This record gives sequence, C-alpha cells and structure tokens, in this order.
Amino acid sequence: MRTDGVLNILGKLLLLISFFILLPIPISLYYHDGAAPAFVYSAVIGALIGGLLTVVFMPNDDLGYRDGFAVATLSWLGLAFLGALPFYFCGKMPSFVDCYFESMSGFTTTGSTILSQVEILPKSILFWRALTHWIGGMGIIVLSLAVLPLLGVGGMQLFQAEMPGPTKERLAPRMQDTARILWGVYVLITFVEIVLLLLGGMDLFDATCHAFATLATGGFSTYTSSVSQFDSAYIEVVIIIFMFVAGINFTLHYHALHGRFSAYWQSEEFRFYLSLVVVSTLIIFLANWKSTVYNGVGETLRTAAFQVVSIITTTGFGTADFDKWPSLCKILLVSLMFIGGCAGSTGGGIKVVRLLLFFKYARLQLRKLVHPHEISTIKMGRVKVPEEVMVGILGFLALYIAFCVLASFLVTALGVDMITGVTAVVATLNNIGPGLNGVGPSQHFGNLPSLAKVVLIFCMLAGRLELYTVVVLLTPGFWKMARKPKFRKLTYIRG
Amino acid sequence: MRTDGVLNILGKLLLLISFFILLPIPISLYYHDGAAPAFVYSAVIGALIGGLLTVVFMPNDDLGYRDGFAVATLSWLGLAFLGALPFYFCGKMPSFVDCYFESMSGFTTTGSTILSQVEILPKSILFWRALTHWIGGMGIIVLSLAVLPLLGVGGMQLFQAEMPGPTKERLAPRMQDTARILWGVYVLITFVEIVLLLLGGMDLFDATCHAFATLATGGFSTYTSSVSQFDSAYIEVVIIIFMFVAGINFTLHYHALHGRFSAYWQSEEFRFYLSLVVVSTLIIFLANWKSTVYNGVGETLRTAAFQVVSIITTTGFGTADFDKWPSLCKILLVSLMFIGGCAGSTGGGIKVVRLLLFFKYARLQLRKLVHPHEISTIKMGRVKVPEEVMVGILGFLALYIAFCVLASFLVTALGVDMITGVTAVVATLNNIGPGLNGVGPSQHFGNLPSLAKVVLIFCMLAGRLELYTVVVLLTPGFWKMARKPKFRKLTYIRG
Repeated sequence: MRTDGVLNILGKLLLLISFFILLPIPISLYYHDGAAPAFVYSAVIGALIGGLLTVVFMPNDDLGYRDGFAVATLSWLGLAFLGALPFYFCGKMPSFVDCYFESMSGFTTTGSTILSQVEILPKSILFWRALTHWIGGMGIIVLSLAVLPLLGVGGMQLFQAEMPGPTKERLAPRMQDTARILWGVYVLITFVEIVLLLLGGMDLFDATCHAFATLATGGFSTYTSSVSQFDSAYIEVVIIIFMFVAGINFTLHYHALHGRFSAYWQSEEFRFYLSLVVVSTLIIFLANWKSTVYNGVGETLRTAAFQVVSIITTTGFGTADFDKWPSLCKILLVSLMFIGGCAGSTGGGIKVVRLLLFFKYARLQLRKLVHPHEISTIKMGRVKVPEEVMVGILGFLALYIAFCVLASFLVTALGVDMITGVTAVVATLNNIGPGLNGVGPSQHFGNLPSLAKVVLIFCMLAGRLELYTVVVLLTPGFWKMARKPKFRKLTYIRG
Repeated sequence: MRTDGVLNILGKLLLLISFFILLPIPISLYYHDGAAPAFVYSAVIGALIGGLLTVVFMPNDDLGYRDGFAVATLSWLGLAFLGALPFYFCGKMPSFVDCYFESMSGFTTTGSTILSQVEILPKSILFWRALTHWIGGMGIIVLSLAVLPLLGVGGMQLFQAEMPGPTKERLAPRMQDTARILWGVYVLITFVEIVLLLLGGMDLFDATCHAFATLATGGFSTYTSSVSQFDSAYIEVVIIIFMFVAGINFTLHYHALHGRFSAYWQSEEFRFYLSLVVVSTLIIFLANWKSTVYNGVGETLRTAAFQVVSIITTTGFGTADFDKWPSLCKILLVSLMFIGGCAGSTGGGIKVVRLLLFFKYARLQLRKLVHPHEISTIKMGRVKVPEEVMVGILGFLALYIAFCVLASFLVTALGVDMITGVTAVVATLNNIGPGLNGVGPSQHFGNLPSLAKVVLIFCMLAGRLELYTVVVLLTPGFWKMARKPKFRKLTYIRG
C-alpha cells in the first residue's frame, strides 16, 4: 500500500467536504436558526486536517488496486467524522457517539436516526443531514461502478464491461471519467425531482431535502412522521417513482438519457427488480385489503407500493407503521431488506443481481440432477458469467451471513431484545433505516446502548462498502504490502 | 423414470414397515393399554397396500439414479402414512392431519409434536413414536451416505470416496453393502446407550425409547417435560454424549470400530463440529452464569451443553425452556438450528461440511483480493474440492434460503405470528423439533391451523431429503423421462 498517496487523497477529500459544510450557512442565516457558527467551526477543523494531510503527504499517481480499499474505507470514516462536527457543535444531540452515528447513517445513505423528534433541529442542520445523504449517494455510485469492479469485490467485476467511459489500466483516469458522467445523471434526476415536489406544494427547503434523501436512497426526512407528514397522494407517488429510479443501475439511466431506453428492458437485473417490486406490492396490498386503516383501494395500493419500494431500495422513508401490519407483510419486508437495490444504484443490501445469480445456481443444480451429462453454464443477459465472478458472489454471501450473525450476537449480548437487535443489524448493514420493535418505523435508535451504536456504525460502513472493502483491511496479508510513506519536503523542514 | 420398479420397491418397503408395526403389540399386551387392535388394523392395511404394489408392479433391477429421487420421496411419504395409522386408530389425536404430522415428525427424526401432554398416550403408542424415529434414522444414514452421493444432491458427492464398501456403478448392490455395514454400527451404538441409561436408573421402556430418539436425533420423549423429567445429571450426560455421537458422520464410527480412532481427528468436518459445540456451550454458559435458575457451575454448564448439542444435532430434547434465556442465547441457538449435524449423521440442517466449505469460499475471495494473481483452490482435508461439488453446495444454499422464506410466508399468511411462524419453519425444515414463542420448548404444534401443519409436514420431508430430492420431482424435465410402467402378469389377468 502506498500510505502517502492514500493519505494525500483523504486530505483532498476532507478539504472538499469542508467546502460542502459551508453550504448550510446561508440557510442558517435565512432562517435565523443560530446554527451558523457550528458549520464555521466544523469547516475550519475540516480544512485544517485536510490541508495538513495534503501538505505533509506526497501525492502518488501510481495508486494500485490495493490502495482502493484503504481510500474507500478511510474516506467514509473521515467523511462521517467531519459530518458529525456540525451536529456536535449545534448541541442538540446527547453525545459524540450519537453525532457520529447520525453522520455515518447520512453518508452511508442508511437513514437510521438517534432522534425521537427531528423537528427540534435547526433548519440548517436538517439540510446538512439531507446533504450527507446526497454526498454519500454520489460516492457510492462512483465506488460501485468505477472502483469496486476494478478491485474485484464480491463479483462486482461483472459490471466492468457495462460501464461508460474509456477503459484504462490505471485507477485514477478511469474513475474520474466515469464519475463525471454518472454525477451528471445524478444531479439531473435530483433536479427533476425537486421541481416535481415543488409542483406538489412542498416548499423549496423540504423539496430539496427530500429529493436528496430519495436519490441517495437515504431516508432522512425533515419531519419525524417522515413523508406521511405531507398527506399528499401526489407527493407519495412522485417519491415512489424516484425511489424506484434511485434503485436502478445508474449506467442504465445514462444510456436512457442518450436515447437508448431499451437498455432498461434489456437488463435482466432490472426486469427481476421490477418483478420483485410488483409482486411484493400485490402481496402486501392483498394482505391489507380488508384493513380499515386505509381509505379504499387507491390508498392501500399506494401505501403498499411506497413501503415496498422504500424498503427494497433501502431508502426507509415511511408513510405507514409496518410494524403493525400482519406478520406476512413484516416477513416479506424483512426479506426485501436483504435484497436491496440493483448494483450500481445508490441502494444498499445484497443487490438484486447477486440474488439473481444465486438462484440461477440453484436452477443449474436442479438441471444437473435431471440431465447429469449436459454441460450448462450460467448466463446474465447474453453474457456467460465467469467462474471468478461466481466465487466472488458466493464468498460475499458467506461473509454477509457471518457478519450479520456475529453483529446480532454482539448487539443482543449488550442487552437488546432479539427482534430489535437482529432487525437493527439488518437495517444498518443493508443501509435501510428503520427495523422492527424497539427500532421500528415509529421508534428510533437513540435508546440503544452506546456500544451497540458503535457496532451498528460499523455495520453501516461495512454494508455500504460491500463488506470486503472493509474486511480486507483487517487481514494481516493486506498490511504486509504497505510501503513506508514519503513525506513531502521533509528535508526542507529538517534543514 | 421406471415407474414399475419404483412402485415395486415402495411396496416392499411398506411390507417391511407393516412388520415393524407389529413390534409394539407385545408392549401393548404387557401394559394392558388397549392399543393392540390399532396396530393390528394398521399392519393389515400396510400389508394389503404393500402386497398389492409388489404384486401388480414388476421389479426392475435396472433402476437409474433418477429413480432414486422418486424412491426416496415416495418412501418417506408412504412411511409417514402407515406410521400415522396406529395414532389414528388409537383415537388419542384430534385429526388425521395431526396423526400424519406426528408420524412425519417421527420418520424425519424431527421430533415436533402436536400433543400438549404425551403421557395421555398408551405405552405402546409412545414406543411406536420412538420407533418411527429409529427407523427414520436408519433410512437417513443410508440415504445420505449411499444414495444421495450417487445422485449428486447438494454437493453430497463429496463423500463418495469416504464411504466404506465396494464401489459399483449400479445403485442397488452398493446401497445394500453400505446399508448393512452402517446399520450394524447404528444398532450397536443404540444398544450401548440403552445399557448406559439402564445403569442410570431408567426402566427398559424409557431407556429404549430415549435411545431410539437420541440415535436418530429425533427428540420424542415419553414425558411432556422431556429429559428434565428424570432430574439426573448422569442421564443428561449420557444423552449429551450420544446426541453428539449421533451428529457425527457414521462412516467415522465405522472406522473407529475397526480400531482407526484417528479417523475422527483427521476429519476436518468433525473438528469444526466439535469447535462449534465447545464455543457455543461456553457462550451460553457465560450468558447464564449469574442466573439463579441453575444450582452452581456444574448444572449451568451441563444445561448449556445439553441444549447446544440437542439443537446443533437437531435432536430437540429439552432440559430447559431456552425461550426464557437471554436474547443472545436464543439467537445463538437459532443459528445452530440452521447448521445441523455432520453429513452422513442422522442430524438434519444444512450440515457442518456445507457451512465449512461456504466459509472457505469467503476466505478464498479475501485472499484473491489481497493476492489477485495467486491461483488458489479449496481443499477439504487433503482433497481438492471439485467445482461441481461447490456448484451443488451453492445451489443447495440458494434453494434452502428460498424455501425457508417461502414457507415462512405461507405459514404467517395463515395467521401465525412472526416469531412462531418463522421458527416453526426453521425447526421443521431442519428437523429439530421445538422453535420459539408459540412452538417454544414448553409449547407444541397442535394449535397451529391445519394448513400450516401441512406446510410444515412438507418442510420436514424436504429438509430431511436435502431439498433437491423432493424439489426435483416438481420439475417438468424430470417427468419427461418417465416411462410407462410394466404391470406384472397383466396378460394373465386379462386372459
């Protein structure tokens, strides 16, 4: 590993985020919410640390794939730290662990909150929460479509061929080109959603915050009652559509914007994702069909669709307390929590494509039992899936299950009840937001023990970075490769 | 498929079981429990059906691997039907679905019961319950070590090399040799346990029934309060040891009986199984350390070990109501439920070896990320695992998860609460016995809706036959291969 180059990049990133921390200041001044100093202090600290790292450590254009793991993990740890500072300085959250939890939940686009009431926060802090989602979503698109495929994490190399932009050996140029193209798509769609929400009667502040949280599949709202606050069928439908869009591989949106709309239907992953959403919505609709809580077919169907899309895309916005729904709906939603969005979207979870390949393997085995001498291969669309990709996916799933079980052990060992503990792990590892019971849609994560929050922070990070990116850093083999860092102008200082 | 040969074998099997149904009659007469006629009627019906099938359908020595699936599935369905008749005729169970549930639970060595009180049953019926376990256990050893490896189900071909007996191409001779050897081992160990339980003060009836249930990893007891009824540390320790033994691949016992004791330690699966048991016992011991329910270190440790071994081997005997233990213990036990015993044991679940290979895949992927140009393979002991075995295991796990989720949907859709429904599926699919909540250790399955019982019966069957054996029968491709049956002496009847 090239420590100098990695820390230099981290420094630049912190400088960039310090700039983003300045954005809520005008909002604070406009609403006179008194939180402006919190942002100034945070930006100064961020700029100091970022500047120091950039000045002390030499940039290194020669970064290899192994450095990618370190950059990704350190970036999110650093982002979450800087992001926690405004929360801390504004003085509305009980402890720094809570601030870090909220910030990590933002940047990993999880949307779990430690607050029982979000309305007590200054407007500019609410905006910052939404902005952490949006920045995190940007980061994830680049990571999942440009960095992880090159690193070969968990079968992501499957998407290498599908990516726009030139193919080069070195990490940096490739990443920058892909990032620029996809960010353009991301910004454009966000803008369209803001406009549509404004047309539904939201004010600019709420529209922007909710569009940020939707596109990032985050789920922080500016109201404790989330999207149900607006009590508007139009707004719910707009948000359903954009959550669904955010759960699709952004490469497909890029193709669609260039007139190739057939790209959606050609993608087997998209077709499977669409089927999952439609079938799950119908099941939940039928299970709540006779419920007296909802007024008529329209509201029941809309509520079902909203919750299904919100959960499968791992957004976590709420219009209903699904913890009070029939058991069947709860199990279905918990199953959807694991699936998550498509690869290359801002959604979390296992990803639709991995699930699809997993079941193709089950079918292959069934075929082999009936026709043992037939030579069968697994295809995705028209492409044969190479064996190394399947190894990646199998390994990913094994690590995923192990991680989920171990984290549940830890959280419940700290005294949390079983359903709360397990669903808290599931909700954070898959970057969703709410779980069931003590962390259900009408509850929050604030009452959990501090140590449990630390475990869940790690779950959010590991889930967001596709597990391996984080876990590989914990192997001794990884660090054996580390080189001594080169310090910039070290001789001048000594001389 | 050769329908004639398959149905002929089924007929012979039913005749054999009709003979076994006669065995409880002396017990009934000895205890004057009045249930003797129930066994006579059942044996007559079994003999009639079995005889008819044997007479009408021609035997076929040319049975292929594909017929193996049909034989296995039909055998268990038929066994459970005949086994349900004595329960039905004795008139102590509410409905035939309940009788079939209890019988399938016996033959699949599950141990889930629909009875709130087992003491109300006649002694001979209690003996028949235990005997269904023992017969089922015999069936499973042959199936998992002689039939499934040849059929290539779920990676079981891994054990082909390890099996005793000559290797031949045709199914029948191979199966018979292996069966004879392993049944000898099974009978011997059962006998030893009966003697040891007698030495602990049990009467012959209880000792035999409990030894049957232990060796089959079944879990039916002759008392509602299960093994805790005896309140004897010695008996608990004996049963812990024999449950542990029943969860080991019986091929290893065969080697040990021939003086090759090192076979245990050489088996990587055995070492992993042992570690799982020791570590889990320690965790549960520590979690209950300060509990005032147990008297001192000895009792706490023994209770922890008993429950861990009872669950991981999928026996399901109880000495404690673990539904009242801390959440950590409950999650740990639910995790162990999925693991199950070693392949080639009478235990159910995913099997230790599949889990082991699954995690080896995760480690391989981690290695590949750190050293991408290294060529790595997965080994089990000193043997390289072929790719087709891995395909089998991956497919098995995918089908397993899908099956578990779908069955949970069905059971909860019938109005069962979430925890009860999910753990009922887990407990039956893994052939354990008790679950949590409404089907917890101090509860029973009797109050579930009839349709839910039917789903759970199917779970027991599918879980016991390693899923694929049952599911493959549901594919259209399988039936395309079916041939018209040859009827024996059909011309004579016509002429």
